[in-house]
Amino acid sequence: MKVKDIAAGIKPVDRTWIDRAKERTAQLVMPPRALGRLHDISEQICGIQQTLTPSVERKACLVMAGDHGVAAAGVSAFPQEVTGEMVKTFLRGGAGINALARHAGAEVAVVDMGIIPVLDPAALVGGERLLVRKVAAGTRNMLTGPAMTRDQAEQSILTGFELASGLFDRGVQLLGTGDMGIANTTPSAAIGLVCTGVSIEEMTGRGTGIDDQGLARKQAAIRGALEINRPDPNDGLDILAKVGGFEIGGIAGCILAGAYHGRGVVIDGFISTAGALIARVICPAVTDYLFSGHCSEESGHRAMLRHLGLTPILDLGMRLGEGTGAALAMGIIEAAIKAFREVLTFAEAGVSEKEG
Amino acid sequence: MKVKDIAAGIKPVDRTWIDRAKERTAQLVMPPRALGRLHDISEQICGIQQTLTPSVERKACLVMAGDHGVAAAGVSAFPQEVTGEMVKTFLRGGAGINALARHAGAEVAVVDMGIIPVLDPAALVGGERLLVRKVAAGTRNMLTGPAMTRDQAEQSILTGFELASGLFDRGVQLLGTGDMGIANTTPSAAIGLVCTGVSIEEMTGRGTGIDDQGLARKQAAIRGALEINRPDPNDGLDILAKVGGFEIGGIAGCILAGAYHGRGVVIDGFISTAGALIARVICPAVTDYLFSGHCSEESGHRAMLRHLGLTPILDLGMRLGEGTGAALAMGIIEAAIKAFREVLTFAEAGVSEKEG
Repeated sequence: MKVKDIAAGIKPVDRTWIDRAKERTAQLVMPPRALGRLHDISEQICGIQQTLTPSVERKACLVMAGDHGVAAAGVSAFPQEVTGEMVKTFLRGGAGINALARHAGAEVAVVDMGIIPVLDPAALVGGERLLVRKVAAGTRNMLTGPAMTRDQAEQSILTGFELASGLFDRGVQLLGTGDMGIANTTPSAAIGLVCTGVSIEEMTGRGTGIDDQGLARKQAAIRGALEINRPDPNDGLDILAKVGGFEIGGIAGCILAGAYHGRGVVIDGFISTAGALIARVICPAVTDYLFSGHCSEESGHRAMLRHLGLTPILDLGMRLGEGTGAALAMGIIEAAIKAFREVLTFAEAGVSEKEG
Repeated sequence: MKVKDIAAGIKPVDRTWIDRAKERTAQLVMPPRALGRLHDISEQICGIQQTLTPSVERKACLVMAGDHGVAAAGVSAFPQEVTGEMVKTFLRGGAGINALARHAGAEVAVVDMGIIPVLDPAALVGGERLLVRKVAAGTRNMLTGPAMTRDQAEQSILTGFELASGLFDRGVQLLGTGDMGIANTTPSAAIGLVCTGVSIEEMTGRGTGIDDQGLARKQAAIRGALEINRPDPNDGLDILAKVGGFEIGGIAGCILAGAYHGRGVVIDGFISTAGALIARVICPAVTDYLFSGHCSEESGHRAMLRHLGLTPILDLGMRLGEGTGAALAMGIIEAAIKAFREVLTFAEAGVSEKEG
């Protein structure tokens, strides 16, 4: 299967299930839509799963890791080795995503989409699985040409699609996307610029914490990469190949898989949302299946979400990535579904309805 | 014990524990404070519990119910019988608070602080406990004089204090407050006006869904009640007696109990926050122990929270009450604590720190 075949297999969510869900919401023993966005969330899940008894009991987070040639341009506050070091920390269960996914009851799988170090899954102790699907040992520096070939872009999306599809086949009902990759706010901002058309000042933030000089270097790198590569805003594979990353392609693949298989996907912050922008260029209907877990502190995330028509569930000043915002929001989504299913109707409860 | 003795026994949170917690946060294997407000939350709990290994595993929600004489002024979209009908629904486990508290892993206890119907706890089937602590069968109409006597105000606060203290004695580590009482956004708005000084237009909203005429009636009732009763803004018992409600006094008592016993309390929406305003007049240090679960859609809630110096954890357009916003936010607080306790330090993980 190719990416274009996946796109052709995706249908928008069937509105009739959403309408049926809204009818049930109107009967729940509370003032009209008094749980606010929880109703929108549960109704969207009803539409996605085509049922009035939806469930997200089985949850998973895929943490996609990749290295970035553009790190050489001094765009990150952390050295590039940290990508691989953090992957090992995920596998030991000791990072933010591990704690928050455990809390949400979501399994975690870590994917080497293209980090520089060679990690042997068998040699690593720890509770979490490492899936080695290395497209290459890091992208090329996008300041001197495309970050990857078009074939590699296709491969990274298909890899994410296959991994997510495997989880859905095993019964996962809600998937969170996460990322790890030193310097990856730089390609993500470049993707954001190509797709949304906002200014570079609005789109580019401080990532893990660069100073003013670092920010200027980062903006110069993004400007340079876009000038040299001139990605086609109507061609998701072209954008990904020229200014993307392997983990960003993997995330786009996860999102396409959710839409293809009729499962909800919760995106995390800036990098996951760049993946969603790529997926949306490939197939606009993917947004029907998406939840924005949170609004990141990273400058530009709000503009990306606006472009996708998504309202974040949480807004807690987080800017860690890894899938942490997605995992945290899964608890809210599950709560929304429980309220939808477990609250009695006015008739069942024998409670008087509104006067007049 | 009297309310003034409780106030005298409350100390501000010890900052040294918060500072120690901040030191640990700075060592966690992530960019500085990358989990945003989750760090503030976990550090506040460390301060409250005076430990670096805090826990909120044991959680409870107290849903305080009361009826309101001012309902006679046509200030609510629902008939007054709904208060008692909803109490029965809580006891059956079929309301919004039941679903969301189950999701959070919090036990629920329902308190008859002063509803009109006489409910027999023994005759009611269902999983949840009804605690009958009726101060009176509803308040008097505050348009014709004080809603209750000063003794009744004292009694309602002491009742909430004793019930919450009992839960803390049994090991509850985090308490959520909830309310039920047809017409209770009217006394809550009156309390908000007395305590915050914002305009009646900003403070008064549509509650469960009144129309324009209902809103005008409600504002007239609030103006009338304040003119007739002239509550003293520096006397919490006076405000509660003149324009409050029994469940609002009970909630104020819960909040005082949290501060007195060194336990965190999560307040819900408009009515719970009116209770917090009363508690703060009685003892300003209570806010150290408070979390605002969410920002309600009810007009005026934001102004109340601003006055208390609290930033809501969630903002999901909810306006149900019952404690639903508190219960939902408990999951975020617990996640924050798990991240604080379970994430490795840079040293433990062997990850390189920030360059420079």
